[in-house]
Amino acid sequence: MRVEIVAVGTELLLGQIADTNSQWLGERLAEHGVASHFHQHVGDNHERIVLALRTALARSDAVIVCGGLGPTQDDITRAAIAEIMNVPLVRHEEIAEAIRAMFASRARSMPDNNLTQAEVPEGATVIPQTRGTAPGLICPVGEKVLYAVPGVPYEMTDMFQRAILDDLLARQRAAGLTAVIRSRVLRTWGSSESALAEAVADRFTALQSDPNVTIAFLASGIEGIKVRVTARGDDEEHVAALLAREEALVRQAITGAFGDIIFGIDEETMEHAVAERLRAQGETLGLAESLTGGLIASRLVNVAGASHWLRGSVVAYDAEVKFDVLGVARGPVVSPEAAEAMALGARRVLGASVGLSVTGVAGPTEQDGQAPGTVFVGLAVGDAVTHRRLQLPGDRARVRAYSAISALDFLRRSLDERVRSA
Amino acid sequence: MRVEIVAVGTELLLGQIADTNSQWLGERLAEHGVASHFHQHVGDNHERIVLALRTALARSDAVIVCGGLGPTQDDITRAAIAEIMNVPLVRHEEIAEAIRAMFASRARSMPDNNLTQAEVPEGATVIPQTRGTAPGLICPVGEKVLYAVPGVPYEMTDMFQRAILDDLLARQRAAGLTAVIRSRVLRTWGSSESALAEAVADRFTALQSDPNVTIAFLASGIEGIKVRVTARGDDEEHVAALLAREEALVRQAITGAFGDIIFGIDEETMEHAVAERLRAQGETLGLAESLTGGLIASRLVNVAGASHWLRGSVVAYDAEVKFDVLGVARGPVVSPEAAEAMALGARRVLGASVGLSVTGVAGPTEQDGQAPGTVFVGLAVGDAVTHRRLQLPGDRARVRAYSAISALDFLRRSLDERVRSA
Repeated sequence: MRVEIVAVGTELLLGQIADTNSQWLGERLAEHGVASHFHQHVGDNHERIVLALRTALARSDAVIVCGGLGPTQDDITRAAIAEIMNVPLVRHEEIAEAIRAMFASRARSMPDNNLTQAEVPEGATVIPQTRGTAPGLICPVGEKVLYAVPGVPYEMTDMFQRAILDDLLARQRAAGLTAVIRSRVLRTWGSSESALAEAVADRFTALQSDPNVTIAFLASGIEGIKVRVTARGDDEEHVAALLAREEALVRQAITGAFGDIIFGIDEETMEHAVAERLRAQGETLGLAESLTGGLIASRLVNVAGASHWLRGSVVAYDAEVKFDVLGVARGPVVSPEAAEAMALGARRVLGASVGLSVTGVAGPTEQDGQAPGTVFVGLAVGDAVTHRRLQLPGDRARVRAYSAISALDFLRRSLDERVRSA
Repeated sequence: MRVEIVAVGTELLLGQIADTNSQWLGERLAEHGVASHFHQHVGDNHERIVLALRTALARSDAVIVCGGLGPTQDDITRAAIAEIMNVPLVRHEEIAEAIRAMFASRARSMPDNNLTQAEVPEGATVIPQTRGTAPGLICPVGEKVLYAVPGVPYEMTDMFQRAILDDLLARQRAAGLTAVIRSRVLRTWGSSESALAEAVADRFTALQSDPNVTIAFLASGIEGIKVRVTARGDDEEHVAALLAREEALVRQAITGAFGDIIFGIDEETMEHAVAERLRAQGETLGLAESLTGGLIASRLVNVAGASHWLRGSVVAYDAEVKFDVLGVARGPVVSPEAAEAMALGARRVLGASVGLSVTGVAGPTEQDGQAPGTVFVGLAVGDAVTHRRLQLPGDRARVRAYSAISALDFLRRSLDERVRSA
């Protein structure tokens, strides 16, 4: 059972809005073990919608088409579906009545164009609206099926969960294709995609002959490189076991090659990893940021409950602020000494138990005799003050972003190290 | 000239990442008057990539395929293209050398799989990398063309701007589709899309009969709402005149209805607008950020030369930091008084001439008796200390982001006001 998603709307092609519907539907289908091999975007044009839907029906078993069901002149999905089904559009009196009633209940007069939403391809089953005016449609096309839903995410998600998912799963069962698909994402920081791939090459090769387990890599910029393990099978328990086994093997391969570079799983970001450790160790954090300009703090405040362990940050962009506020000794401010002094200063000024600092050269020109991309991270924990030197690639924005996650990773590892050596 | 975008990656189908590449490319193509009628997503599967590309080549004149060019086993776009071109993959020695050199320059050993990135379909032209390892490709397919770029946005956007756009426009000209298309984007903050549309409704109606000038609205979240005026014609001078005339009329309509809400044009962000005014007035800025957690500072440091006017920021996430470091009187910290005290404190502590502060409730629960979305911006310029109260919609991340741009807009308008009343 292969489901294709077709999102209709010229605004998608023009890049004026992001297609969150396909992403949401893709995630739901995967959760329920329904394969989805293709997505399409097409504009508000009759011939092209027909072409996109015919293409989808040719290569997939079911199609979910989102958008173009509203009341305005550019809502033409209904007519395109009628052409594909080779049937006329007929007025569905119950829908017309529901639309009239909805306007009446809000004491609003109804523009006549709203009744176009009651036009339904002959032979289609209606999915009633509970949140808007345009109903959804379930349209048989030979042995295949075409589901039409509004493009408004709030209405689309409701119809999918209320009417489409069960219909799809029933068809999947009827075709004898029950399957469960589960994934696990391992998030890493500190290695390259190619080196990771090499580290797990043996697993990759072993899985060539196993259609039920796959490994994929996903370079996610400043979120690190993700390694996704996916398992499929007929029942939940078996799939969970397959996934757990493969995850353990991949973890072993990665940590064997690179050490502790897996900082989280699935949706856990680096800031979550840091937050968890600070909380567990009862520490509070004070930051001193130079080239990152507040980026580290602004990532950390996204973690729920950050106020329990985050005191704040001194963004010391100007050297004088480093001297006057943080107590850094006058002299070069891109140096190990300055980084350490900043970490101590942040801890003191902000009244925190842990101080983390970043100073460096974002570029494009050198500073204090240091090349662009040279960054020092300072860390004050307990009686220890340490630093780490980084050499980062990229333009100013990237050097900043990499500095932020690298500094947090340094903190994560240092907090772990402390527990291990305690 | 119709261009289709094909984004490759199983993670797109599974909904694990959003396809920002198609959106970005769609926007760029539209800006340059290049039609794009379809987008597709396809997973990391050889047969299906081939099918998606053949489908695209059948219904469009050019195809941009993003992703699947990396060094790992699931990067198979190159092989799919070779099959479509019906040619072998050949090792491109210059690319291999560049990849080796890149690893050497970072003093890292190169995993052998990186050299798969030097495999190129015979007859393809290479787009050299400047930001990563996988080169791009320009592949002739009969009269049509297939451009392949990496899926990493940072690398993709660079290759598009450096090599693909000009090639596309040259093909468009060769096909006799020469037209000069120029756009001007007016960036606004402080009105809604529907209200803006209403304000320029007369222009919109007047242009219905003019195929050469169009107005479009683009809600861009925390970048505000953009109003794009586009003019087309056969020569540069004529188009420039059309554009200038329409821009003046639209500006008049907007400022007539809402006052000074246009803060920049084209690529000028709010932080550029603020930077320009601070520089012109010889002021330096110190920030005090609470719920924004460093977001304002981290936006400002993106402006080149920020060190000339930005002193830094005190991110006072914890109330104690507001009291101890910024000198706010003990009491509720989400209040007009606290915002003004924070602005004064930031100015004093950071040694700046202008102090800007933000304090408020990001949510989801209330604080100091204030509802989520309640935000106070404080400003200290010269002898004046003022504040502004905002009520912002959305979840925590959105309240933060809106707070940041609203605070900068308040500073922008206040600095302008000062000049006007001087």
